[in-house]
Amino acid sequence: MAALPDIKHLFEPRGVAIIGASHDPSKIGYKILSNIVASGYRGALHPVNPKGGEILGLPVSRSVAEIPGDELDLACVVVPAKFVFEAVKGCADRGVKFCMAISSGFSDVGNREEERKIVAYARERGMRVLGPNIFGVYSRPAAMNATFGPSKIAPGKVAIVTQSGAIGLSMIGKTAVESIGLSAIVSVGNKADIDEADLLDYLVADEGTSVVLMYVEGVQKGERFVSALRSATRKKPVVIIKSGRSERGAIAAASHTGSVAGSDEVFDDVVRQCGVLRAESIGEAFEWCKFLSDTPMPKGERTLIVTNGGGIGVMAADACEKYGVRLFDDPKLLKELFSSVTPEFGSLKNPVDLTGQATSTHYDKALDAALACESVDSVLALYCETAVFDAENLEAMIQENCRRYREGGKPIAFSIIGGEMTEKALLSLRGKAVPVFADVYTAVSCFGSMYAYHRRRNERPEAVLEADIDVGAIEELCVRAHRERRSSFLADEGQRLLELMGIPMPKTGLARNLDEAVKVAESIGYPVVMKVVSRDIIHKTDMGGVALDIDNRDEVIDAYRGILHNCRTRMPNAVIQGVQISEMLKGNSEFIVGGRRDSAFGPVVMFGFGGIYVEVLKDVAFRAFPMTRKEVMEMLKDVRSYPLLLGVRGQEKKDIGAVVDTIVKVGTVIHRCPSISDMEINPVFVCEHGSGVKAVDVRIILSDVTRGGADA
Amino acid sequence: MAALPDIKHLFEPRGVAIIGASHDPSKIGYKILSNIVASGYRGALHPVNPKGGEILGLPVSRSVAEIPGDELDLACVVVPAKFVFEAVKGCADRGVKFCMAISSGFSDVGNREEERKIVAYARERGMRVLGPNIFGVYSRPAAMNATFGPSKIAPGKVAIVTQSGAIGLSMIGKTAVESIGLSAIVSVGNKADIDEADLLDYLVADEGTSVVLMYVEGVQKGERFVSALRSATRKKPVVIIKSGRSERGAIAAASHTGSVAGSDEVFDDVVRQCGVLRAESIGEAFEWCKFLSDTPMPKGERTLIVTNGGGIGVMAADACEKYGVRLFDDPKLLKELFSSVTPEFGSLKNPVDLTGQATSTHYDKALDAALACESVDSVLALYCETAVFDAENLEAMIQENCRRYREGGKPIAFSIIGGEMTEKALLSLRGKAVPVFADVYTAVSCFGSMYAYHRRRNERPEAVLEADIDVGAIEELCVRAHRERRSSFLADEGQRLLELMGIPMPKTGLARNLDEAVKVAESIGYPVVMKVVSRDIIHKTDMGGVALDIDNRDEVIDAYRGILHNCRTRMPNAVIQGVQISEMLKGNSEFIVGGRRDSAFGPVVMFGFGGIYVEVLKDVAFRAFPMTRKEVMEMLKDVRSYPLLLGVRGQEKKDIGAVVDTIVKVGTVIHRCPSISDMEINPVFVCEHGSGVKAVDVRIILSDVTRGGADA
Repeated sequence: MAALPDIKHLFEPRGVAIIGASHDPSKIGYKILSNIVASGYRGALHPVNPKGGEILGLPVSRSVAEIPGDELDLACVVVPAKFVFEAVKGCADRGVKFCMAISSGFSDVGNREEERKIVAYARERGMRVLGPNIFGVYSRPAAMNATFGPSKIAPGKVAIVTQSGAIGLSMIGKTAVESIGLSAIVSVGNKADIDEADLLDYLVADEGTSVVLMYVEGVQKGERFVSALRSATRKKPVVIIKSGRSERGAIAAASHTGSVAGSDEVFDDVVRQCGVLRAESIGEAFEWCKFLSDTPMPKGERTLIVTNGGGIGVMAADACEKYGVRLFDDPKLLKELFSSVTPEFGSLKNPVDLTGQATSTHYDKALDAALACESVDSVLALYCETAVFDAENLEAMIQENCRRYREGGKPIAFSIIGGEMTEKALLSLRGKAVPVFADVYTAVSCFGSMYAYHRRRNERPEAVLEADIDVGAIEELCVRAHRERRSSFLADEGQRLLELMGIPMPKTGLARNLDEAVKVAESIGYPVVMKVVSRDIIHKTDMGGVALDIDNRDEVIDAYRGILHNCRTRMPNAVIQGVQISEMLKGNSEFIVGGRRDSAFGPVVMFGFGGIYVEVLKDVAFRAFPMTRKEVMEMLKDVRSYPLLLGVRGQEKKDIGAVVDTIVKVGTVIHRCPSISDMEINPVFVCEHGSGVKAVDVRIILSDVTRGGADA
Repeated sequence: MAALPDIKHLFEPRGVAIIGASHDPSKIGYKILSNIVASGYRGALHPVNPKGGEILGLPVSRSVAEIPGDELDLACVVVPAKFVFEAVKGCADRGVKFCMAISSGFSDVGNREEERKIVAYARERGMRVLGPNIFGVYSRPAAMNATFGPSKIAPGKVAIVTQSGAIGLSMIGKTAVESIGLSAIVSVGNKADIDEADLLDYLVADEGTSVVLMYVEGVQKGERFVSALRSATRKKPVVIIKSGRSERGAIAAASHTGSVAGSDEVFDDVVRQCGVLRAESIGEAFEWCKFLSDTPMPKGERTLIVTNGGGIGVMAADACEKYGVRLFDDPKLLKELFSSVTPEFGSLKNPVDLTGQATSTHYDKALDAALACESVDSVLALYCETAVFDAENLEAMIQENCRRYREGGKPIAFSIIGGEMTEKALLSLRGKAVPVFADVYTAVSCFGSMYAYHRRRNERPEAVLEADIDVGAIEELCVRAHRERRSSFLADEGQRLLELMGIPMPKTGLARNLDEAVKVAESIGYPVVMKVVSRDIIHKTDMGGVALDIDNRDEVIDAYRGILHNCRTRMPNAVIQGVQISEMLKGNSEFIVGGRRDSAFGPVVMFGFGGIYVEVLKDVAFRAFPMTRKEVMEMLKDVRSYPLLLGVRGQEKKDIGAVVDTIVKVGTVIHRCPSISDMEINPVFVCEHGSGVKAVDVRIILSDVTRGGADA
């Protein structure tokens, strides 16, 4: 296979061919060409059509092979589906680096085979394929609008990658209306070859791009996606909208695109782990992108709210809690800073309340003080229309303060509410990309996205963890099970696996007579639990075959005799192998640690509140593996029952380190042993700090070997 | 005390006096008068000022007593705080029915005493007080803008009640900008007398009001508020924005207004119980009010989505799940209805995908079919801008379809996204109050609010439940405890209370010798639990003083001897009263049922996942009491662990009826016994269907009698 080209040539091609260029202005093959011409693309442009002639003043080549010169980096293929393979073949043979297959009618309608054939041929010859089923690419660095969408695209700093053509095309218009300029927009369609991860490589490096927005319906090569996101989000904010959140939506998404939408819980947890800002709606995503593309980044997390209305200040404080924005909280400094600039009756707490008596001068002074103060890292300024305020100065006051804050490198956002004058200022300022919002919650959600990114970029990168496990020995266990055509492990295999992983189980032993019982119990240490072992006795408790909380030698003897007596009396025909004696675990710290090979993301681990009600309480968190220690800790804190690990109600702190190790061990097995598709330890009994964990039960599901590996 | 006047006269006064009317146009005493004049108020208008003269052509009375005529229903008091009492006194003595105290400087700055004095004097003489600390009242039926806000208010069908003056004033302007007309806006300020509940009585009866919007910071007379909301929401949608959701916000709210904001969890649960639509932000509330004031109500819940883009359709389905909008789901009918009107490759599922090839004609045909179909109850129509669509027809297509749907009595909403042409249509249509939205989530949230109201108004009213409990006997227990200066019940008092409530506890008895042990155990029935009773032995389990799961006479004898032997050996000096023998409860269905006298809402009950981790898992729901059976059932379903009651993992269904009874009993005690402020039964062990519940432990806190009753 030939070496694959640098993705840069997709965004900055030195020459472009349009295979299927049309003379008919109503055709896509004309529209793309005319958009490229109109956008001012400076490279060589070659329409291709067997009819030849001239389109838009450009000579038409009869085939791609005919095109002269070396630097043909990109070809757009706009012929019907059945002719696409031939066109792609021609491009690959000609040495084209990237081929955009605009045409639909492939995996989007179930025709996966043709798509695979196209990609295989292209990659074999060192050409990569974007699409099929796309509207094209716009790239600001190349001044190239190679889409069949609107011909005018406002240049700017936001890059969009979209899996949906319809949404992408309408976003082009909508971003222009919202004064959001684009550095690139790429339609990835069926993602037969090039996907989001490939594009991120370029967009993160591109100096003209300050925010990346992705519309995603389904993830295919999840491990690569995760790794691309992880590194991208340290350098630039990445906002993702993923549809198919709901069960219903997921069904619609699966039938709509060629990809299977993964479980939304997993998606949500994993992209947050990767530092992604997940937006719910297009509107929210646009607000964030617009704000993030222009705001200076804060130095710290102390946000000050300045308001002229108490109620709206309270709403902002509510919104700050919702979106994870932390408030500046230094009563002494607040008083010092604002007592001279706040009217009588105003509040010198945060929110600082300038009262309904405030004029633009009061705002100027207060915002000046906040800008000058080293201890204030960002400011939310709120305005409710009043008769007292000099409305004619509103727009200028906001614009001027935003300019000064930008110069001073401190983030600010305004939220203003009122009638005609206020609305006029709002629309005018939004048109000038000044961060002013009609609703407090929207303003604060933008601050929330900024701070999430702030935390991400200031995170000290950590190495990912991997446990040292004898993978070979585990694979041997799997081979045996496979040979026996089993899809899961037997109990003893599960125990052996836990041994290989170094995860302790409760100590246990079998006693076949009284002497042995005492010996086993003493070797385990008290208290112990005793249980009859007999294939014939199912309901062991009902038969008097169980004794709990045995504290000493005498009790062992009593219990042993009692158990045998009860069982022999009540089930005279039962064959009794002996009595199992086990360490007794106390307390209620039962968790679950699981791992699985996710169809979208590959190795994924799960942690949560364990026991028999996992499905009822659903108090679990997911993460892609491998992961850093910090990520594991964040995962623990994500579950509501995390305080149990810290010790509630006077209990000792639990062994959190051992929980982390267990998660890493399970993740390592899933990551390194492709034969195992699912592993679940439940309950994991977490002991006091320093005393580790005990795995009470384990369940293993093997990958379906007939499918040729789990990651197929 | 004189009879209080009909609230109608506040909204439709036959005569209005302005106490503190001013000649100075910069003063509030001038602004209100001029707003009343400008708004076209037709009743008698009397400026009052000791200086006399004439303002705006109206003769000025020197005192309210001087004003001739009988029908002086309303007085606006706009004098400084220190003169307010005198002014109010004059009005009350003159026989004025309602007095608006505009002035601030009362409980808003901690001066509760003066406020109480004013209200006491007024009510004694049959006058009611609005405020103090308000901007006034606008009432469309009276064509009266008695506010000092904007002079122009667009008339319409939305009534606003606001606790914040600043937010209320800015809402006047903002509603006009958003083309939302008002039927009334009332500022309630400190709510010293008149509150939301009083106003609801009028607004629900007013034919010109179709939606009520409230901005609330804190609730004072919660029981009346709950009862007013309960009945109002059956007749009209009531939208509430409450600030102080977050802890931080709640602190700010408490310092801002005179009221204490209750816990947001309780507020949220209780207003939902009352059928209220709670909006998070002002923006969301406005969207809902605008939509609800104009849309016809649906006949059923089958919503159809029509789209020209698959991705946006998936997002709409996601949003429908989020906002509780149910989708039409009849594959056969869908195919029948839409196969002839959908382009090739379109989807005949719901969402119906007209594809990017759709023109306005396709939309017309599809929406026609949906309007005509009896099985489709409402329609969400989505549009992504495409080059194929005849953009010049977009606005007319939407407006015409909305008109036809309104005529046909079927709700419809559009969500459209695109560039300039689309934006132009959007703004123009929104100005004409056509339900078209820029974001799918906003459109669907409006449908969500419509369906929540639809369900509420179609609910069959049910009687509230009350348990038959000997309240007198319970009060006697409280009296004894109070006499002993205790603020809680002793263990035996708790048990007695449960007996009086008819809530069973696990059977239990004390055995002082072996014979008694056997007798007690046999009378309880096996299995039992045995536990040493001794004030000297704290750690009973550690001393071998506990035996679980005792199944028969022999085991009772063994256990009794064992317990005494262990305790005597290990603690030779302990005085042993005997052994307590109790019924052993099996399974894991431990819930909590609690009740308390909430500072805002009065009697409130709580239900949730019980045991020792209530605070960790926080899986609880609250409701105001009394409540209907349906409300209790909804409360049960609100907790995540509800499936435990249905029986998970092969368990039998639990006795849900007994849980309902227990909640009603606890609610009745809290409701009927003012001496008890808190009651908590935890755990409540729920047995299998037909076998009731067992209260394992109960905690009672008595009202602070020194405060003179809990409801102070």
